[in-house]
Amino acid sequence: MAEFDLIVQIQSYFPHSRDDTHLGIGDDGAVIQSAGALTVVTDTLVEGVHFFPTVAAADLGWKSLAVNLSDLAAMGAQPAWALLNLTLPRDDVEFVAEFSRGFAELAQQFAVELVGGDTTQGPLSVTVTAMGHQPSHPLCRSGARPGDHLFVSGELGAAAWACQTLYREQTPDHKALVCLLKPQPRVELGLRLVALATAAMDLSDGLGADIKHMLKASSRGSRQTLGADIQLQQLPTAAAMTNLSDEQRWSLQLHGGDDYELLFTLPEEALQQLPLIQQETGLTLSCIGRVSDQAGVRYWRPDGHLWTTPKTGYEHFKENAS
Amino acid sequence: MAEFDLIVQIQSYFPHSRDDTHLGIGDDGAVIQSAGALTVVTDTLVEGVHFFPTVAAADLGWKSLAVNLSDLAAMGAQPAWALLNLTLPRDDVEFVAEFSRGFAELAQQFAVELVGGDTTQGPLSVTVTAMGHQPSHPLCRSGARPGDHLFVSGELGAAAWACQTLYREQTPDHKALVCLLKPQPRVELGLRLVALATAAMDLSDGLGADIKHMLKASSRGSRQTLGADIQLQQLPTAAAMTNLSDEQRWSLQLHGGDDYELLFTLPEEALQQLPLIQQETGLTLSCIGRVSDQAGVRYWRPDGHLWTTPKTGYEHFKENAS
Repeated sequence: MAEFDLIVQIQSYFPHSRDDTHLGIGDDGAVIQSAGALTVVTDTLVEGVHFFPTVAAADLGWKSLAVNLSDLAAMGAQPAWALLNLTLPRDDVEFVAEFSRGFAELAQQFAVELVGGDTTQGPLSVTVTAMGHQPSHPLCRSGARPGDHLFVSGELGAAAWACQTLYREQTPDHKALVCLLKPQPRVELGLRLVALATAAMDLSDGLGADIKHMLKASSRGSRQTLGADIQLQQLPTAAAMTNLSDEQRWSLQLHGGDDYELLFTLPEEALQQLPLIQQETGLTLSCIGRVSDQAGVRYWRPDGHLWTTPKTGYEHFKENAS
Repeated sequence: MAEFDLIVQIQSYFPHSRDDTHLGIGDDGAVIQSAGALTVVTDTLVEGVHFFPTVAAADLGWKSLAVNLSDLAAMGAQPAWALLNLTLPRDDVEFVAEFSRGFAELAQQFAVELVGGDTTQGPLSVTVTAMGHQPSHPLCRSGARPGDHLFVSGELGAAAWACQTLYREQTPDHKALVCLLKPQPRVELGLRLVALATAAMDLSDGLGADIKHMLKASSRGSRQTLGADIQLQQLPTAAAMTNLSDEQRWSLQLHGGDDYELLFTLPEEALQQLPLIQQETGLTLSCIGRVSDQAGVRYWRPDGHLWTTPKTGYEHFKENAS
């Protein structure tokens, strides 16, 4: 089977579905229609780095789109289109069918149309680019201000716990495994936060690393050095993880990564809207601390003492980390 | 060095440059402004499949953008933005600097702003996504009609000849090597063809394979089976290749790939515009044959006999070709 047959196979899972798509898969490019601002995100997943070689193809399809829709959610954008660049070691009709099925399942949930991409031969790797309408100003990382309340959606650490369990060749808790394999992008939440939050981002590298990125961007944005105080007992935790020791749990929640929840900051006056948003989105939104004008991120234990975290968060190119 | 430092390093080569970019590199996504239709293209280049492991990083940077701008050119779009997903075996500051320099050189030529991307660890591979304004209807593959004249820009086969010479561990002709390493996307030509051509596409897999794609799309578009008659002596040839035998040359021109010239079809009444377009773009535009209502592609030798080509064109997943 050749490249063009693979494209035809993938295409069969993605019928033309959007009025604002002028030209979809099959030409040199796709033509889409935007009445205004468009948000564009992209992420690459590499075998052995971002997923286990044993991953089910359908789960990989889902996740490769999910991590991108999570980025669109963090911007407060409405997903609309995706491109899929699939690099495969060999022609594998069954893999492509299952991958497409998982990808299409999530795409349909958010009315995302696949409009293009590329298939190539090489070590297994997936790049997805997603585009969405930006109905108003984007939710940026740079808007957090001292005194803002720090919130996260859902629960933290379950995906990392499942990942750690798989590394140890043990069987993870089922719900934790679903968090790792099929994260649910928080699109509705992002859309609701645009008018309320001062800053937002999605949690992919782990709260410990990601909050630093937000504070760095917001420090530039406000021309002052910002920090944060995090209350460890307020980190939202999956029921299955309550058997872990505090230190084990906090480590996973801060440094594990792969949560794909939203981290966002709310000024005092926005707090009253939270019950309605929780009700509308069906998500638990947990206040985990506050932004401070004191540099650095401080993690407070339930006993009122500071906790010194063992490492700074997930990063690629670990072996050369400086 | 970690992922975020690499992004900062890449970013230093790509200053904010476009008024229609609302938000560039550094957040969860980029926000761009479109007044209407937008064309989106993407291509992945994998080491050992699309480029030699010995390629200079700056040339790879150039080419990874060029192949995408060539797709935008084929659609008649005006390039505006790009995303870069770079997968690297290891943190390599010098490689990233040179890659960025080559990419930026071409980006500046077409006022393309890099607005986002991703850096990951893994086997060397580059995915670039490019977006452009589509000022009027797109140039599609599907509009060719019987009797239309088939044209190509520039010269064919030089890149493939350089590639073949490198495979043999010999030194290619310098101009041919430049064709392989630094193809020049035919953006101005694409923009000029929108009002004239019935169909267009860029030549990446080789004329022999690509013309089949155009005829297949145009057959669907016109609900009749189309074919073409190609005059082999009219294939435009680089001066350095005139020493090759006819068969060697034709093989490279039909099946070598990597030309990144435009293949397009013109109806009779558009031919009078050609001298002006050649003058404006500085490109040689060669008529190589005509579209026919007789199925199949026929290659005519200078002696008036048909030439049977030895194979059908470049395809990935060759080993399983069916």
